[in-house]
Amino acid sequence: MRTLYVIGIGAGDPDQVTMQAVKALREVDVYFVIGKGVEKQELVAVRTAILAEHADRPYRIVEIPDPPRDRDPADYRGTVLDWHERRSLLLEEAFAAHEGVGAILVWGDPALYDSTLRMVERVLARGALDFDYTVIPGVTSVHALAARHRTVLHRIGEPVHITTGRRLREEGLGAGSTVVMLDADCAFTTVPGDTFIWWGAYLGMPDEALIAGRVGAVAGDIVRRRTQLRERKGWIMDIYLLRPAE
Amino acid sequence: MRTLYVIGIGAGDPDQVTMQAVKALREVDVYFVIGKGVEKQELVAVRTAILAEHADRPYRIVEIPDPPRDRDPADYRGTVLDWHERRSLLLEEAFAAHEGVGAILVWGDPALYDSTLRMVERVLARGALDFDYTVIPGVTSVHALAARHRTVLHRIGEPVHITTGRRLREEGLGAGSTVVMLDADCAFTTVPGDTFIWWGAYLGMPDEALIAGRVGAVAGDIVRRRTQLRERKGWIMDIYLLRPAE
Repeated sequence: MRTLYVIGIGAGDPDQVTMQAVKALREVDVYFVIGKGVEKQELVAVRTAILAEHADRPYRIVEIPDPPRDRDPADYRGTVLDWHERRSLLLEEAFAAHEGVGAILVWGDPALYDSTLRMVERVLARGALDFDYTVIPGVTSVHALAARHRTVLHRIGEPVHITTGRRLREEGLGAGSTVVMLDADCAFTTVPGDTFIWWGAYLGMPDEALIAGRVGAVAGDIVRRRTQLRERKGWIMDIYLLRPAE
Repeated sequence: MRTLYVIGIGAGDPDQVTMQAVKALREVDVYFVIGKGVEKQELVAVRTAILAEHADRPYRIVEIPDPPRDRDPADYRGTVLDWHERRSLLLEEAFAAHEGVGAILVWGDPALYDSTLRMVERVLARGALDFDYTVIPGVTSVHALAARHRTVLHRIGEPVHITTGRRLREEGLGAGSTVVMLDADCAFTTVPGDTFIWWGAYLGMPDEALIAGRVGAVAGDIVRRRTQLRERKGWIMDIYLLRPAE
């Protein structure tokens, strides 16, 4: 493999790919798909639609199985680091076995809560392989959420904090506005009731759901809607923005 | 005007437009350009290149002059609110005078440090005009910066804080990583010297500049480079990511 593209492909709407991504897709010989077994069918379908529309030359898809991972470890960071190491060894093997231009497609943007870049850095740091390496930025679910609610992420001149459900529970709301990702446990139920919330699930996909209002008024609706959708579809991908009352 | 698109067009590389943005551009009859007089020629050229490549029907460009604004007011928020009101009245006049599909193009993403959505909300709140209104998310300079440095914005499981140069000076670094936008005064020189900085200017444009390293080692280089570039070109658009030493 002489070149690797790590490409952000947007938050779930196949039209959220950029022209820069489309131009890269047209050069790719082989796509490396990490952990495909655990991916949801609808996400695979979106990615397939993107390739069907934009990749205009023959390509191969190489699936790299995910090593097992403790989802609720005592040492979160250590466990994740070890898992990245095992994943990156599998990735290195796959890179070494292929020629031409490779690509890894990433939901949203590779710089936000995604481990692809860390794994590629590990492969390069081991020094056994050498290749050109370009990252193509994408539209994140943060911006997809704001766009669907037609809202700015912050009040005038104020900051935006992007964090996880785990941290929101531990640390509460900070100054300004807070975007919460990776929250399986409805941590928004722990903030003051007069906080404003803009919630979205499956953004840009046919089952997209949006709810906005004061937490005290809509938290129950969001929890119910979330449970219903997850039961019906077997998975959920959601995100929300919180802003304390003025 | 029956429909308005507010479209994020990326951080400066014309290929950072999404397919969703391209499809919207193909429907537009009239582009409203706010404050064009103060825009830099190179940014106007990028936007012109985007329209030349993707807009495939005749369109008009309507320029809306910016009302004057105090750039260093005592009451920052109040002054900005008053300025938004005056801008939104000009925008309403322009909307009322045109038919068909209108659009406003926004650098980066409309949800991050941009006032277009607030002005459109003001026009709608006054109730004199009614139109469909869709926001199309874009790639921000935050993600363009991370992509060019091929780095993730945060350490594993940690938060990202997006703030302004003004606030970095007043509040210092928070937990996790901090992205600083709208900084005319090199506020990065005020953080501890062992902080890591990833800096970028004119991202995705021909004069793109990137510097990364410990603040203690590279802050002087960045200040010099920034001054040279701004003098040579007459303007600068830059952004940086800061992360405290572990």
